[in-house]
Amino acid sequence: MRTRPLKVALLGCGVVGSEVARIMTTHADDLAARIGAPVELAGVAVRRPSKVREGIPQELITTDATALVKRGDIDVVVEVIGGIEPARTLITTAFEHGASVVSANKALLAEDGAALYAAAEEHGRDLYYEAAVAGAIPLIRPLRESLAGDKVNRVLGIVNGTTNFILDKMDTSGAGYSEALDEATALGYAEADPTADVEGFDAAAKAAILAGIAFHTRVRLDDVYREGMTEVTAADFASARRMGCTIKLLAICERAADGGSVTARVHPAMIPLSHPLASVRGAYNAVFVEADAAGQLMFYGPGAGGSPTASAVLGDLVAVCRNRLNDATGPGESAYTQLPVSPMGDVVTRYHISLDVADKPGVLAQVATVFAEHGVSIDTVRQQGKDGEASLVVVTHRAPDAALSGTVEALRKLDTVRGVASIMRVEGE
Amino acid sequence: MRTRPLKVALLGCGVVGSEVARIMTTHADDLAARIGAPVELAGVAVRRPSKVREGIPQELITTDATALVKRGDIDVVVEVIGGIEPARTLITTAFEHGASVVSANKALLAEDGAALYAAAEEHGRDLYYEAAVAGAIPLIRPLRESLAGDKVNRVLGIVNGTTNFILDKMDTSGAGYSEALDEATALGYAEADPTADVEGFDAAAKAAILAGIAFHTRVRLDDVYREGMTEVTAADFASARRMGCTIKLLAICERAADGGSVTARVHPAMIPLSHPLASVRGAYNAVFVEADAAGQLMFYGPGAGGSPTASAVLGDLVAVCRNRLNDATGPGESAYTQLPVSPMGDVVTRYHISLDVADKPGVLAQVATVFAEHGVSIDTVRQQGKDGEASLVVVTHRAPDAALSGTVEALRKLDTVRGVASIMRVEGE
Repeated sequence: MRTRPLKVALLGCGVVGSEVARIMTTHADDLAARIGAPVELAGVAVRRPSKVREGIPQELITTDATALVKRGDIDVVVEVIGGIEPARTLITTAFEHGASVVSANKALLAEDGAALYAAAEEHGRDLYYEAAVAGAIPLIRPLRESLAGDKVNRVLGIVNGTTNFILDKMDTSGAGYSEALDEATALGYAEADPTADVEGFDAAAKAAILAGIAFHTRVRLDDVYREGMTEVTAADFASARRMGCTIKLLAICERAADGGSVTARVHPAMIPLSHPLASVRGAYNAVFVEADAAGQLMFYGPGAGGSPTASAVLGDLVAVCRNRLNDATGPGESAYTQLPVSPMGDVVTRYHISLDVADKPGVLAQVATVFAEHGVSIDTVRQQGKDGEASLVVVTHRAPDAALSGTVEALRKLDTVRGVASIMRVEGE
Repeated sequence: MRTRPLKVALLGCGVVGSEVARIMTTHADDLAARIGAPVELAGVAVRRPSKVREGIPQELITTDATALVKRGDIDVVVEVIGGIEPARTLITTAFEHGASVVSANKALLAEDGAALYAAAEEHGRDLYYEAAVAGAIPLIRPLRESLAGDKVNRVLGIVNGTTNFILDKMDTSGAGYSEALDEATALGYAEADPTADVEGFDAAAKAAILAGIAFHTRVRLDDVYREGMTEVTAADFASARRMGCTIKLLAICERAADGGSVTARVHPAMIPLSHPLASVRGAYNAVFVEADAAGQLMFYGPGAGGSPTASAVLGDLVAVCRNRLNDATGPGESAYTQLPVSPMGDVVTRYHISLDVADKPGVLAQVATVFAEHGVSIDTVRQQGKDGEASLVVVTHRAPDAALSGTVEALRKLDTVRGVASIMRVEGE
């Protein structure tokens, strides 16, 4: 074994960073044995230097992250700051100064992954980011490497633990959205401002990353269709149950049937209770992958949290350090297919639509005509009447999303339709 | 991109080999883009050269596997023959002649993995074998690489599709073992001689491989405790259901609580219906991994079949080819912990025991005394009497397997115990 240690700079020392530092210290011997050389924490860049950080010698702490990545003797920079800046500049600077980078930064990778990859390649260094998607669940490496000889057609996943906790709570307890959110906040599963989670921004960033890797093309955050889950109601769960389904916030990346384009989207959807994703409880994440030869695979585990995310970071750290010792690099960006990303309107899916309608003869015929005019075929209709009002629940066959939303728009204009109570896509069948 | 192709020799052209050859041809452009150089099928060693093999030029076919691996211009040998010999000699010869090896051979890796790794290292070549365990499910790479910075404590998996199909059938239809086996055979899930599957030999080989990788030590097939599932009855399933459990044939690899040793075993066990492994249906495989930092992960997918296994082989092929181009090698054997493998008696687990006893006062007291004398604490007892005969179902707390089997032995000697109807371990709680 080489005795000169590999030097690691840690940018950020919050929940994840402190755990990375802790494991680097407590498991130093194991890491050295697995890498083939010891690793040494050479510096830790933080915002609040006065905070006591157990197990991290004070002399390693600095507030000058830029100086740390510019030192020139750093082998690997671990970036767990998050957000776009200063993370982007720090990572780029790290590559320029000869370091490889392990990042957990989904927002940055979704926003600007291609530029980061280019910087890594220019300087002959590695960019690894297993922790950016689904915490500890090995997902980036299986997609980039294990499935490198296969053709992935679909990635369907629960990639946000906060929203899964909330939806699971709503499903199992009958609670409404606000009540379930309050509980998630009280238990620390939701942040004080839960927007990034509940509006699907976090999941959309992950969908962009997964779609890019799965289809060997570039997918940016802007390419991802996004709907949050704040409008999912207890009534939606009741409807879902009647269909033998539950509701999950899903990230869905698909190759079009003709293979010429891809789509990426995040929205709440009904999925059958028999689908493996339906039984993913609490804050857990799971990602379902469908590939030509491999068939259906699923990866399941904790999608967030300091320790699980640190596990993913350290797995990458070991790989990147091994590469440094071998004077090699792992797989870089693979975007050779250059498949375009189609808009949401092109996605082929199914709708579950609840309508409040006048309870009089001919309404169903009117409604059915609207579906037919838009080329959307109806799978089932359930009609329930009471006191001159009725509700109509329509489940469609698969149709382009544009045709489905056109149908809903037209339905809203019918005199006999008093309101569209809910629209939800149906997936995983 | 490099234009000179990397040359691949394929040893074996059965269900898996023919699929590897097919994908290499149909997806040649994708493979080339992902590797950075084209790959060329340079030869295919078979036993029956006269058989027509669609898509494989006749001039590539040879019966002389040894000459093929000795050619000297082969970059990668893909071994999908299976069995110990001639596979072992061919792989060793391949390394000696400068080739890296991708193998799907679980029996050989479990039997002699250390020697193969040593040969690979001696010649500076790669040995990859994702396809040897759980077909298409990325498992070896996540354990070897993604979790390389973590400490795995437990691997608990359904790693044999045939037996899972049979047990699932028994569970869902109430069928007995022979009936379910007949159906598995008729559907092609079980071979004409199902011994390797139903007696747990196949799963034991996989357990040996998984334990070695998970705990960074050497575990051989002989180190794995093995019980088949041919004696599981419909009555066992009925008992399991009463406990809120089902029965699976599990491969279980554990680090001892004190960290100083490991165990590996294969046997049927009751697991709670709420455990993610309980809902693994049909011939699917799934492996649950518990690690210090990552927490609980699960990997799920098709565990066998030509296409899924070929997917795993090709993922390895891409990795090994990239390494060749980089003049590097991937991670080799990691057995530095040198943890000894403890015998089954040291495993700490729970038992579910059904006894046929005389229906008279004092029997329970007698039975309970035997448990106490062996230091085994009882969790629950269920007693059911009828016509002078009674059955007693005892579920124990966790205790060393040796104490549990000693208890059963002593129970058999009691006059009031007419018979031990079934003994089954309880796992996954």
